[in-house]
Amino acid sequence: MTEENSKKKAKLAPIYMETSSAPTNIACIKYWGKADAHYNTPINDSVSVTLDQADLKAVTTVASSTAFESDRLWLNGIEEEGAATSKRFRACIDGVKALATDKLDDKGTVVVKKEDWQNMHIHASSFNTFPTAAGLASSAAGYAALVAALSLLMGAKEEYPGQLTTIARQGSGSACRSLNGGFVAWRRGSVDQEWKNSLAEQVADEKHWPEIRAVIMVVSDAKKDTSSTAGMSTSVATSLLLKYRADTVVAQRMEEIERAFLAKDFEAFGRLTMADSNQFHATCLDTYPPIFYMNDVSHSIIRIIHAYNKWAGQIRAAYTFDAGPNAVLFTLNQYAVEVGALMLHYYPCLGEHYVNNPEFEAEIKAFEIDAGLLAATDKTGQDPQPGQVKMMYYTRSGPGPKKLTDTILNLDPETGLNTYKVA
Amino acid sequence: MTEENSKKKAKLAPIYMETSSAPTNIACIKYWGKADAHYNTPINDSVSVTLDQADLKAVTTVASSTAFESDRLWLNGIEEEGAATSKRFRACIDGVKALATDKLDDKGTVVVKKEDWQNMHIHASSFNTFPTAAGLASSAAGYAALVAALSLLMGAKEEYPGQLTTIARQGSGSACRSLNGGFVAWRRGSVDQEWKNSLAEQVADEKHWPEIRAVIMVVSDAKKDTSSTAGMSTSVATSLLLKYRADTVVAQRMEEIERAFLAKDFEAFGRLTMADSNQFHATCLDTYPPIFYMNDVSHSIIRIIHAYNKWAGQIRAAYTFDAGPNAVLFTLNQYAVEVGALMLHYYPCLGEHYVNNPEFEAEIKAFEIDAGLLAATDKTGQDPQPGQVKMMYYTRSGPGPKKLTDTILNLDPETGLNTYKVA
Repeated sequence: MTEENSKKKAKLAPIYMETSSAPTNIACIKYWGKADAHYNTPINDSVSVTLDQADLKAVTTVASSTAFESDRLWLNGIEEEGAATSKRFRACIDGVKALATDKLDDKGTVVVKKEDWQNMHIHASSFNTFPTAAGLASSAAGYAALVAALSLLMGAKEEYPGQLTTIARQGSGSACRSLNGGFVAWRRGSVDQEWKNSLAEQVADEKHWPEIRAVIMVVSDAKKDTSSTAGMSTSVATSLLLKYRADTVVAQRMEEIERAFLAKDFEAFGRLTMADSNQFHATCLDTYPPIFYMNDVSHSIIRIIHAYNKWAGQIRAAYTFDAGPNAVLFTLNQYAVEVGALMLHYYPCLGEHYVNNPEFEAEIKAFEIDAGLLAATDKTGQDPQPGQVKMMYYTRSGPGPKKLTDTILNLDPETGLNTYKVA
Repeated sequence: MTEENSKKKAKLAPIYMETSSAPTNIACIKYWGKADAHYNTPINDSVSVTLDQADLKAVTTVASSTAFESDRLWLNGIEEEGAATSKRFRACIDGVKALATDKLDDKGTVVVKKEDWQNMHIHASSFNTFPTAAGLASSAAGYAALVAALSLLMGAKEEYPGQLTTIARQGSGSACRSLNGGFVAWRRGSVDQEWKNSLAEQVADEKHWPEIRAVIMVVSDAKKDTSSTAGMSTSVATSLLLKYRADTVVAQRMEEIERAFLAKDFEAFGRLTMADSNQFHATCLDTYPPIFYMNDVSHSIIRIIHAYNKWAGQIRAAYTFDAGPNAVLFTLNQYAVEVGALMLHYYPCLGEHYVNNPEFEAEIKAFEIDAGLLAATDKTGQDPQPGQVKMMYYTRSGPGPKKLTDTILNLDPETGLNTYKVA
């Protein structure tokens, strides 16, 4: 059937649409290694901070109609070939369809019976408000937004709390944590429950510790990273240290960091976050062949943060690195400008649009860094040099997915085809 | 007493002198972490290849006389302040003195009774034939040469095999392995034997596998490293992965690599060497604060070596990194020129004296690298760039310490004072 015929048919059958946005999240205790590749479950628990959608988010519109001939997906305006048979996309569509309920119109009349969702194909279009290339966990936000939008569309009803996160998990592991705001744990679950208990749950919402801030340093890197999926698989197969970490180290760290977050104990939260980032990268290095995600710039940021904390006599900033060279620096509101100024000093602006937040940019430019602090951080050997960092993001913790009503629609209500174009 | 008086007194009492050279060694299963700081014993076994003294060595002259007023040490021509009370230097002197025997002259007359060595102070002067700054385990060669020279001087007689290595161990841990040639294991020993069994023993001599070659890439690095002693101490205190490695992983690797070396199985030898280097650096990264010894250049060498081996369908080169960014690449004679040419291609010469061995330099410059190989290694993203590597050494495995008779003396036979000057 041609695109033209498709449009005609769509006009005869109604199209139902919903749009959701979802946040990204940054893990403090890291997920690395799958226990079960089919169910996409992890070998250990993890916990993350959900970031504010005001700064970083994915926006996904989904549409459903008997007029659609197949399931289709557009990412940042470009259609994904073979999406209909992609395991990840399918798991989300089929997972939410299984929880679908009757759709009622304003008058309470059933317009789609719950079993009829099965007969309708799905179109989905998603974009990120941050560069995908920046490596800021865009797939977590994307799959969370997809599941949230599908759930709205079909009125999904969970059979048990967290069930939707098990669906997002099958899209992208860490996406399950993006379905909640604040501080979110992903419990690894167990095979004896068919991994139904491998789900995310909120430890504390974003209002619990409102002083938490994140400064993200997007590090320039020409090297190709090993993809997370491939990397994890090799690590599980070859790293003895990863197995030991998953079996023995993580459980206690989870307890400690959840306690620290609930007690707003930044000293413990920061120490555990840094130690766990380093241990994750240690297991990558113990992989054969080894995997390197951090580079010399990443290392220099780590040295500066430790020198800063030592100078301060307390932990004021804590770094964490995912599967790439970018640093996420957690700090508290009262130190955020100092941290930002320190970073801007050592990683000065190369071009325009260097800091996402103009107000923060003005503050860190105006901030006078303590001479004793600079003397301490200079000893790391880092020379201020533009070009090592591409951009800085300043953000905080935020809530889970949001329903968007009117302003943004990525699909044409008349045809169900993508309308989003990259600016 | 003035230097002048000292000279006069020395003329009255005889001065006994000996000179030894000793090799450096490169560990394949790494030593990292002390079990007992006082005895300088390790938390796990290690094993290394002794390198050929033709290319890299320490040369140490020791002298003894009743005319000397204190124990003195010169390193590369400069006197070490406080050497007489330095724990490391003392352990070597006192350790060898305890094993001293009567010294006879050519006619069989006793000129020094074994108990009289106790009444004589020691002067020692040591230099390296390679830049200390290059970070090529200079302390291992230096302490091995010191113990070897002292042993010659005082006719030391071991009470059990390997006892001298326990003395060298107290100078610098890895020095114990430099008292043997070839492939040398350092057994961790046990506290119940007062660590007397923490000693080095030869697994195979340098003639066993004569095809083994080493290409050493001395990597430029501006950053200050954490010293090994400080780094180990922090790692033992903070890294859970290091404890697991020492307790659980190393013993099996030692068995496997000794078997591989004896069987001349480069595939297994290379794989274990690379995996263990990576695991050592992983435990450094798991240390809090983390320790980084490898930098982006080190990482790029690792990527190239893995791409090379993959292209070859076999392990032709195996990297290992000590507590610094320099790579030691083990290979076999038949692949040494290919490995050297590949390294020269990606890390071209910046200035003169780039390669230690002119013949090898000519061969690797003339060698035409397979186009398919370059296509494979280019995919690592490494661009040929001078300046990343300071120099290349080409060497092989060699024997343990040697007695030097005439050509080199670092101390004046008349005064017992240092004569060595840096060129």
